[in-house]
Amino acid sequence: MTILHDALAKIQAIDPLLLEKAQAKLDNKTKPLGSLGRLEEFAGRFAAISGSLEPDTAKKVIFTFAADHGVVEEGISAFPKEVTPQMVFNFLSGGAGINVLGRHGGTDVRVVDMGVDYDFGDLPGLIDRKIARGTANIAKGPAMTRQQAVAALEAGIVLANGCRNEGIAMIGTGEMGIGNTTAASAIIATLSGLPVKQVTSRGTGINDAALANKIRVIEQAIQVNRPDPTDALDILTKVGGLEIAGIAGLIIGCAANRIPVVVDGFISTSGALIAVGLNPLIRDYLFAAHESVEIGHRYMLDHLAAEPILDLQLRLGEGTGAALAMGLIEAGVKIMKEMATFSEAGVAEQQQ
Amino acid sequence: MTILHDALAKIQAIDPLLLEKAQAKLDNKTKPLGSLGRLEEFAGRFAAISGSLEPDTAKKVIFTFAADHGVVEEGISAFPKEVTPQMVFNFLSGGAGINVLGRHGGTDVRVVDMGVDYDFGDLPGLIDRKIARGTANIAKGPAMTRQQAVAALEAGIVLANGCRNEGIAMIGTGEMGIGNTTAASAIIATLSGLPVKQVTSRGTGINDAALANKIRVIEQAIQVNRPDPTDALDILTKVGGLEIAGIAGLIIGCAANRIPVVVDGFISTSGALIAVGLNPLIRDYLFAAHESVEIGHRYMLDHLAAEPILDLQLRLGEGTGAALAMGLIEAGVKIMKEMATFSEAGVAEQQQ
Repeated sequence: MTILHDALAKIQAIDPLLLEKAQAKLDNKTKPLGSLGRLEEFAGRFAAISGSLEPDTAKKVIFTFAADHGVVEEGISAFPKEVTPQMVFNFLSGGAGINVLGRHGGTDVRVVDMGVDYDFGDLPGLIDRKIARGTANIAKGPAMTRQQAVAALEAGIVLANGCRNEGIAMIGTGEMGIGNTTAASAIIATLSGLPVKQVTSRGTGINDAALANKIRVIEQAIQVNRPDPTDALDILTKVGGLEIAGIAGLIIGCAANRIPVVVDGFISTSGALIAVGLNPLIRDYLFAAHESVEIGHRYMLDHLAAEPILDLQLRLGEGTGAALAMGLIEAGVKIMKEMATFSEAGVAEQQQ
Repeated sequence: MTILHDALAKIQAIDPLLLEKAQAKLDNKTKPLGSLGRLEEFAGRFAAISGSLEPDTAKKVIFTFAADHGVVEEGISAFPKEVTPQMVFNFLSGGAGINVLGRHGGTDVRVVDMGVDYDFGDLPGLIDRKIARGTANIAKGPAMTRQQAVAALEAGIVLANGCRNEGIAMIGTGEMGIGNTTAASAIIATLSGLPVKQVTSRGTGINDAALANKIRVIEQAIQVNRPDPTDALDILTKVGGLEIAGIAGLIIGCAANRIPVVVDGFISTSGALIAVGLNPLIRDYLFAAHESVEIGHRYMLDHLAAEPILDLQLRLGEGTGAALAMGLIEAGVKIMKEMATFSEAGVAEQQQ
């Protein structure tokens, strides 16, 4: 519990003066005031989070956390649970969507086993933080013990601490876990109090009958476990997932280490909700990568008061939306660092 | 007139079979069907336009066309017209927004003088296609002669033809020209028949009084010139701009050479409207980079039935939105080319 407690205690509010200084710097560049819109917002927030008006963005990492979900036995997914380890192998051999987009953006992709129901042995490239071989079936009882939830959070925090030592400038979140949209919907339903059917959709692509079943299963999970909506750790323990816990921990660790963190889609944002539930200051360290097709995502973003960067109708996860958004955030930072000022370029300033 | 005529005659409809083949290829990749949303759309359209399921995206170029506008003497801009040549020097020394974003995305930026009211002499790096030292004041008469409009269109076409020979995979449009939102608003007002005030906003950042004046000036320009809404060349000649003509020509040339072309914001899209007005098949070769803050842009996009890729509240022009969108389109193409298939990766397929 010490690692979690220390990280949460270390998080400070971002410095509003740095936001102002960054905007003043941007306002002096050869462009009409504010004309680069959200790129300027990204640059300003990046400066305020990292504490620098000249942040280095060369080193970027996405962590893709993998875990299984006992609730898959309720028939809530279009894919069999064997796909979770199969995709881990795919990540490690570079053939998955996140690998392609990571390479495209110059971002390192690191795969973390938080709780896959498969014995990988000593597999090169895989970061082994396995807490259990998947969660228990949330339709029948809690997903994990409170100790397991804390251990998974702390695993994520330790990864972020390591990134600080490596000089990583920006971190993205990602995940793989057959069944994990069920856990994410359960989390936002609990936090928001909204009817389950309003925050639940088709995940990887189930049909109408399976969707009706998925909604029933989530309603049952909430009824059986009665997670406390005001206690993020309780929600995570009862209806969460081990990869979601890893993401939440990573986000906490990023905030504690002043590393901007780019939250991918529906599952990753459920991890962000847990992190922000444990310390509301974390909100200022987040970038919301995109708006997912999953209908519950809009409510998550509202809960975080986060404006997504992209809307490309994505619903793959893995960190794919984060990989794309990181390129846009980096573009904003480069605008702040590299553009010429009016006086450097000898360009006349605005008259009105 | 031969170059324009030949290019327009050469343009063919894209092959729907290639769209299908691209989707079939994407559907075999290790992801739920359709889960990469618009990235899949970009990949499919890129394949159909270029005629290849394995298009090479290594070489990308943005053309930033610069020109002056006689209408500036009516006080419609927040910046003095001297800023047009000053920004050309800024582009050539690499300090402008488009230079930063071009470098970020690995895209070459080429600057074309279509009609700047300044004698650059023989300036290294500048592509000299000057038709005139700016347009005439559209509040008093036509912007240019029909011969000048055709010459400017043909200059753009010839640039696209050169790119085909160079093996350029994708082209973006951009511009610089103090006063050019006035011309772009006049173009969409003419084409759509909408009231000028509904398609006119603040450009680089004018105040309320200057905006009211700008609207009056555009109304006057349309009244004085009476451009024919059904004749794109007439609209270009009477209320257009030389950089807008260059963009329209470039787009025509891209379609004739089957090169995907990424249209930047408000001004660039006015060029696309002219191109599509001359041959409606061109529509299929366009990607709309982003939705601009300029209120008239929405009507332009509707007119083209184009869905913008980004919404980042940009209003700088130069090609900055195109530079960002090109990175996302390229990401989609790489997904189609580089991701592993289910059988390659040994991953089980969808059950429902």
